[in-house]
Amino acid sequence: MSIPHRAPGGFPVVGIIGGGQLARMCVGPATELGLTLSVLAEDAHSSAALVIPSSPVGEHTDVEAVLAFARECDVVTFDHEHVPADVLQALVDDGIAVHPSPAALQHAQDKLVMRDALTAAGMPCPRWTAASTAEEVTAFAAQVGWPIVAKTPRGGYDGKGVLVAESVDDLDEWLVTAAGRGEPLLVEEAVPFVRELAVLIARSPSGQAAAWPVVETVQTDGICTEVIAPAPDLSEDTARTATLVGLDIAATLEVTGVMAVELFELADGRVLVNELAMRPHNSGHWSMDGAVTGQFEQHLRAVLDLPLGSPRPRARWTVMGNVLGGEHPDLYPTYRHLMARDPELKIHLYGKGVRPGRKIGHVNVCGDDLADLRERAQHAADYIQGVITQ
Amino acid sequence: MSIPHRAPGGFPVVGIIGGGQLARMCVGPATELGLTLSVLAEDAHSSAALVIPSSPVGEHTDVEAVLAFARECDVVTFDHEHVPADVLQALVDDGIAVHPSPAALQHAQDKLVMRDALTAAGMPCPRWTAASTAEEVTAFAAQVGWPIVAKTPRGGYDGKGVLVAESVDDLDEWLVTAAGRGEPLLVEEAVPFVRELAVLIARSPSGQAAAWPVVETVQTDGICTEVIAPAPDLSEDTARTATLVGLDIAATLEVTGVMAVELFELADGRVLVNELAMRPHNSGHWSMDGAVTGQFEQHLRAVLDLPLGSPRPRARWTVMGNVLGGEHPDLYPTYRHLMARDPELKIHLYGKGVRPGRKIGHVNVCGDDLADLRERAQHAADYIQGVITQ
Repeated sequence: MSIPHRAPGGFPVVGIIGGGQLARMCVGPATELGLTLSVLAEDAHSSAALVIPSSPVGEHTDVEAVLAFARECDVVTFDHEHVPADVLQALVDDGIAVHPSPAALQHAQDKLVMRDALTAAGMPCPRWTAASTAEEVTAFAAQVGWPIVAKTPRGGYDGKGVLVAESVDDLDEWLVTAAGRGEPLLVEEAVPFVRELAVLIARSPSGQAAAWPVVETVQTDGICTEVIAPAPDLSEDTARTATLVGLDIAATLEVTGVMAVELFELADGRVLVNELAMRPHNSGHWSMDGAVTGQFEQHLRAVLDLPLGSPRPRARWTVMGNVLGGEHPDLYPTYRHLMARDPELKIHLYGKGVRPGRKIGHVNVCGDDLADLRERAQHAADYIQGVITQ
Repeated sequence: MSIPHRAPGGFPVVGIIGGGQLARMCVGPATELGLTLSVLAEDAHSSAALVIPSSPVGEHTDVEAVLAFARECDVVTFDHEHVPADVLQALVDDGIAVHPSPAALQHAQDKLVMRDALTAAGMPCPRWTAASTAEEVTAFAAQVGWPIVAKTPRGGYDGKGVLVAESVDDLDEWLVTAAGRGEPLLVEEAVPFVRELAVLIARSPSGQAAAWPVVETVQTDGICTEVIAPAPDLSEDTARTATLVGLDIAATLEVTGVMAVELFELADGRVLVNELAMRPHNSGHWSMDGAVTGQFEQHLRAVLDLPLGSPRPRARWTVMGNVLGGEHPDLYPTYRHLMARDPELKIHLYGKGVRPGRKIGHVNVCGDDLADLRERAQHAADYIQGVITQ
């Protein structure tokens, strides 16, 4: 295991398990702050390994590899939430500082654990139950009405692991699979939301917390395609409630680092918690250009228990557009056109190979005219994907 | 020579000769744009080598090392201006794209070549001459009056290589040294300037150019300590003239990449060119947080002949304070205090060991209240240096 080179002056090494784009996007702020990053990467050409000198290759499920990696770091955090509980526990047992802690992280790893904890804490959730049988599903649907939303408690992302069921027959296969795994499904009412919001919180081990403005997230086929910061036409009451829900969850679960709470907004202005993520999150990418302190800098500050930076927005509006892979693998020539078309466009690419539908980057635009910003972000994302050709 | 890992998608490798902080600060924007950096570093722990995976160690004076390095890159640019002419020519002869070109770069390497070219182009300069003897100095001073300013044409920086002479006796030693080198001194009138300004230009091989707002630079003991963007109370006429001087110089000398022109502002609003730098420059560090496109992103775009980004300021004022090394080598504990005191402070550290007076970082603050911003930037710089203790 190679030893990361530290900057002189007492600066720490932040270890990140997983070499995806979230680890990659820590590079700019870590460089600015004099911090050294070390990444346990899936392979030598993963998104983060391309840009971080200390990127040993290892599996996040391999206790010995993770321990050897972590012992060269001052704090360990995560690019993803897939590190198994026994590996996390081995880190803690070894005396390694892990942020977020395994006790907090489990709420982002298992949606049933999350629903249990949030319900116990009085946080607003959709009606839900754990169901292992067709009878349990039917009984729940009798209370909340069809359709219902079934989720695998572990391992889902970007719409995977979620099924909207019109009848119990739709769940036949899922119930068999769940029984095979010996774990129930999470079954929730289908919430009649008017839109989706997200609140992003950073919290340090000392308990300092900071919240960015509540954003609107736009999903297409279960994948976030656009984020508007702040959420347009959001009532002050809903904004305050959503922010307090985020801060309450972070404090209750003792989250450290950045946490995203995905929310449903209802017609009456109430919010219900949809999902939690305990890491920098797609709904916060706007902050890289749109806030005084972006989420990746804030995450580094939080896991190191440094004072948090200001989450103040730097423009009236910031719009983030996700760039998905299309049919054209050659990204470099395409972005010349975008740079010429829009000199204010901020392009963020992840160094990943193009596969249709894969998140390979995002764009941010900031300004005063929301309709114009949305058009520009959408155009750039569509052009890189190849959905449009000019 | 190791081969830099490219991101998939046709992205180029930008080679930078020299592993100082200017190369280091390209890391954030290169990562965002999917570009790969490769640095020919002075040593394995140089500022840039700490954060760039491809950082072979080699001397910028070693033709073979520089050629081997450059052949793995799509374009070569510079962290400093010290690469000798024969090494630059070898790169060009080998068909390597070098930006800025050796023909342009010589104007930043040799102040006599610069004065000759700018005078020929009608750019406003102090009165100057090349002087090898006491007689030549005395004759020049008889025209412009004492004191005069003597400069070694090559190799000076941060006030080194500059001497204000009250009489010809002050230059005894310098004239002997210059005679030994076989090159004259550059001797200039001492300009009665009211303040120093700088204009930063980016220009691409296609000829596209962009200018950031003209800034005021504050020097202490010959070292830039503060930059205010834009320069306060600058007349529109002077701002326009300074910007046009910068654009004219960039076009006339066919500069590619970022170029800084340091200017003297006279009481009547005229400007005179003091120095040129053909690379990102201290006077542009404010743009990392204060402009839509920072100078390091713009330099990368320019040397790759990509369309340039908008240099529009993102705040009414941005103040940059240079952080100099002091007596305290442990920087990490000191910046906790600053983060707690000022959550909007943007800290940029260079990963360099502390030596008294050495530039080891800078801070930026953006906002509406200039006096407040100046106080905050100055406080942060002084606190890190250890000049103040709270």
